[in-house]
Amino acid sequence: MAVTAVIAVDAMGGDLGATATVPAVVDFLSGYPDVQILLFGSESELCGQLNGPLREQGWHAQPERLQLIDCPQQVDSGDRPAHALRHKRESSMWRALSAVAEGRAAACVSAGETGTLMAMGAAVLGTLPGIERPAICTALPTVSGRVYLLDLGANVDCDGDTLHQFARMGAARLQVAEQLREPRVALLNIGAEAGKGNRAVKAAAELLASDASLNYIGFVEGDALLRGHADLVVCDGFVGNVALKAIEGTARLLIERLRATGRSRAGWRSWVARPLFKSALGFLDPAQYNGASLLGLRGVVVKSHGGADSAGFGHALTVALAEARGVLPDRIAARLTAAVNSP
Amino acid sequence: MAVTAVIAVDAMGGDLGATATVPAVVDFLSGYPDVQILLFGSESELCGQLNGPLREQGWHAQPERLQLIDCPQQVDSGDRPAHALRHKRESSMWRALSAVAEGRAAACVSAGETGTLMAMGAAVLGTLPGIERPAICTALPTVSGRVYLLDLGANVDCDGDTLHQFARMGAARLQVAEQLREPRVALLNIGAEAGKGNRAVKAAAELLASDASLNYIGFVEGDALLRGHADLVVCDGFVGNVALKAIEGTARLLIERLRATGRSRAGWRSWVARPLFKSALGFLDPAQYNGASLLGLRGVVVKSHGGADSAGFGHALTVALAEARGVLPDRIAARLTAAVNSP
Repeated sequence: MAVTAVIAVDAMGGDLGATATVPAVVDFLSGYPDVQILLFGSESELCGQLNGPLREQGWHAQPERLQLIDCPQQVDSGDRPAHALRHKRESSMWRALSAVAEGRAAACVSAGETGTLMAMGAAVLGTLPGIERPAICTALPTVSGRVYLLDLGANVDCDGDTLHQFARMGAARLQVAEQLREPRVALLNIGAEAGKGNRAVKAAAELLASDASLNYIGFVEGDALLRGHADLVVCDGFVGNVALKAIEGTARLLIERLRATGRSRAGWRSWVARPLFKSALGFLDPAQYNGASLLGLRGVVVKSHGGADSAGFGHALTVALAEARGVLPDRIAARLTAAVNSP
Repeated sequence: MAVTAVIAVDAMGGDLGATATVPAVVDFLSGYPDVQILLFGSESELCGQLNGPLREQGWHAQPERLQLIDCPQQVDSGDRPAHALRHKRESSMWRALSAVAEGRAAACVSAGETGTLMAMGAAVLGTLPGIERPAICTALPTVSGRVYLLDLGANVDCDGDTLHQFARMGAARLQVAEQLREPRVALLNIGAEAGKGNRAVKAAAELLASDASLNYIGFVEGDALLRGHADLVVCDGFVGNVALKAIEGTARLLIERLRATGRSRAGWRSWVARPLFKSALGFLDPAQYNGASLLGLRGVVVKSHGGADSAGFGHALTVALAEARGVLPDRIAARLTAAVNSP
């Protein structure tokens, strides 16, 4: 089968490094026979996986589907973004991003540190006109499906115009990669009534309401984020980061306590409790939501969670493929230009 | 026993009104034999409770402990703060606050709408020097105890100085009402490293670090809020409101799903699951944390959650009593003056 998409993978990032990324790539290649992966990393580590635990699958002998690119450096978790930018230009992250910049790949996936990936992404790929820093967008589980939240990171002092940009970029992402024709866009706020909010949210509410290209549905509050009323919730990076971590932290804490209590009771109760938890809380499985999109770059870049296992990294690969196939950066650029020209 | 503290109660607020507040007051009076309650509301409704379901307890005949003050108005949940301020000066909320302003009570407790209580509190009691709007502070359960979060409400565009004020007010509250000599104060942020955050948080970090009157321990992230590292976490009202609701919403959603899954299974599993949930998740019981403090007013005002039952309202009464006994507004005023005079 002819290759229709090429994805560049930084195999060295994340807590598990190649032991998670290489098995994920191998599994992914089996599922998508028309995709080629460029695998950037330490050749000895990559071969250690391909010739070791994964030997029987035979991918070490199929360079037309899986190409190894040996990189003398890797970005370490302790590296500050500014340091990595200057001194890690032979790293797997830099080179994987360069493959996208040079047109050899349609997307890059990395589990490296977010700040460094954003800084390198901006340096190697450049940002779209009007965008200073990429915005981060990720999916969260809701009772009825999923909700996308952005920004989650670097844009911490936003005005209404920036939030409006986020709404346009996020809506484009959901149309391209989730096949939602008219994604329901909401603003995260501290009340549902008009007039609530800080300066940026009030300004953004007017801009979104008068933007005919958006299906703007109004405000959602923090306790309704997971209720499925909206497909996309827009906020500044500070608020989004706090909200995301508060949700994750609360869910993790409750599950820990349920598990610990279950274990401390009689064994037969555990086997009763476990399927109950699995059935009730399986929708929270982080692997199903792994893969945050860096929006506003001149190329598709997807960040896998640093703690993701191979199933999680595999999901990030599918996110990247969907965005690459939809040529997301072009779609976003078109949306942003429309915003500039609108009255 | 001589009365050592008088608390003014707006009996008409909240979803349950007098059916929650009056039983709570009656129960509270039994536990605190040196406290008098001034109960503001519709006399017929209050007497309906005292002479009806609560008749056997005999409080209707003890005006030296429980004094009823008939009010011709009440603040309704649909009333906008500005409307209530102008047209509801005969309401139970306004009159209960006035009892504090006039020195007839040491604290006021209400389950009325937050925005209205804040606006009326500021109008009736006034704010302390340097304070524009009261900040809201509430407790959340942690794995090891509790954490106080402020602001949660009206101060949505804060600079570093405002966050510094919050830290001083919150620390005073924890010293006075929780007997913590040196409460651990943290700033809510999107990373633990120095240099992270938005403009206001970066400015506040410097102010808090150089304030010798505070035990400042640095940043906490959203996922660590419930981990018990800090006693007091400071943030602007927008971020605090989103974080609080995200935590509450996530906990509520998970518990709903566990309950629904438990019910849909065989009945014998439910009785296994129920004590497990209770043991694992009992620390979340909202009644134990009910009672948010309005800090920065010239008087103690405690807001009970609109949905609180009588146990929850009872907890709000104990919060108000602790703050009244510690003469919290004077302590806060002293702290704020020190802040102004510090280099």
